[in-house]
Amino acid sequence: MVILGIDPGYATVGFGLVEGDRVRQRLIQCGTIKTPAGGPLAPRLKQIYDDTCLLIRQFTPDAMAVEALFFNTNAKTAIPVAHGRGVLLLAGEAMGVPVFEYTPLQVKQAVTGYGRAEKAQVMEMVRRLLGLEQIPKPDDAADALAVALCHLRSTTSLMNRAGG
Amino acid sequence: MVILGIDPGYATVGFGLVEGDRVRQRLIQCGTIKTPAGGPLAPRLKQIYDDTCLLIRQFTPDAMAVEALFFNTNAKTAIPVAHGRGVLLLAGEAMGVPVFEYTPLQVKQAVTGYGRAEKAQVMEMVRRLLGLEQIPKPDDAADALAVALCHLRSTTSLMNRAGG
Repeated sequence: MVILGIDPGYATVGFGLVEGDRVRQRLIQCGTIKTPAGGPLAPRLKQIYDDTCLLIRQFTPDAMAVEALFFNTNAKTAIPVAHGRGVLLLAGEAMGVPVFEYTPLQVKQAVTGYGRAEKAQVMEMVRRLLGLEQIPKPDDAADALAVALCHLRSTTSLMNRAGG
Repeated sequence: MVILGIDPGYATVGFGLVEGDRVRQRLIQCGTIKTPAGGPLAPRLKQIYDDTCLLIRQFTPDAMAVEALFFNTNAKTAIPVAHGRGVLLLAGEAMGVPVFEYTPLQVKQAVTGYGRAEKAQVMEMVRRLLGLEQIPKPDDAADALAVALCHLRSTTSLMNRAGG
């Protein structure tokens, strides 16, 4: 089973492709989609959409796992990220990939066994679970891998279905 | 010049098509895109995207004018609307329609001449400017017409370009 994990964003979207099951997981690829800072909004959203569709076409994931947004962050920060996140969810849906959502707490819980784990602990567990020498760079890519791992290791995936 | 005005949303998107120039404007069509309440997120976003592309194909607007989101609303309300708004901007960009953004203040200013106008005054001016007997229903559709009128009547359209 191949999972496309997504750390949603607007200037930078993290993505991570992981293959495996509940017990064993391996890295396929990870990276970021970057859009030009200060450029107009609509073309940046289109770039995120097109690049995500391209990733789906190339790696044909069985599911897409997208991190949920905090509701308690301030709206000024959350709104642009939510624009990007809407486009990411649309890409999954349009390409026929089942889309699942996980809160940061669920991701931490599934990856480290502890919902209040520090970011460094989550990163280290991503490295270990995937049997890598180094923590993947940049952070957005590692975050996306954590979401993909969360989907594979979670027993409650069906409860988080966002569509598809 | 045909303008597609959009009152962005998630459960309900208002749209309004207006033809005209800075001096004279007439209604072509208005209405709403409604998505099933409580349904999963991704298919609802796809419906908004598909319906918006359909409107663009049918009416071939010269520009799309989308209302901006307040940054001072709470994030819990703003985040779902911003998901929908991202998909709306993408639809314009993907269909090759220049996309413009206007704040509620700009819309009120352009339609009533007064940036702090009440909602009822804006609605009444929409009715008068379009030479209608009644204020268009529902409110989301009338709001979208106000945004389209704002684009036509605004002298600073080029400053609000979001892409295209």
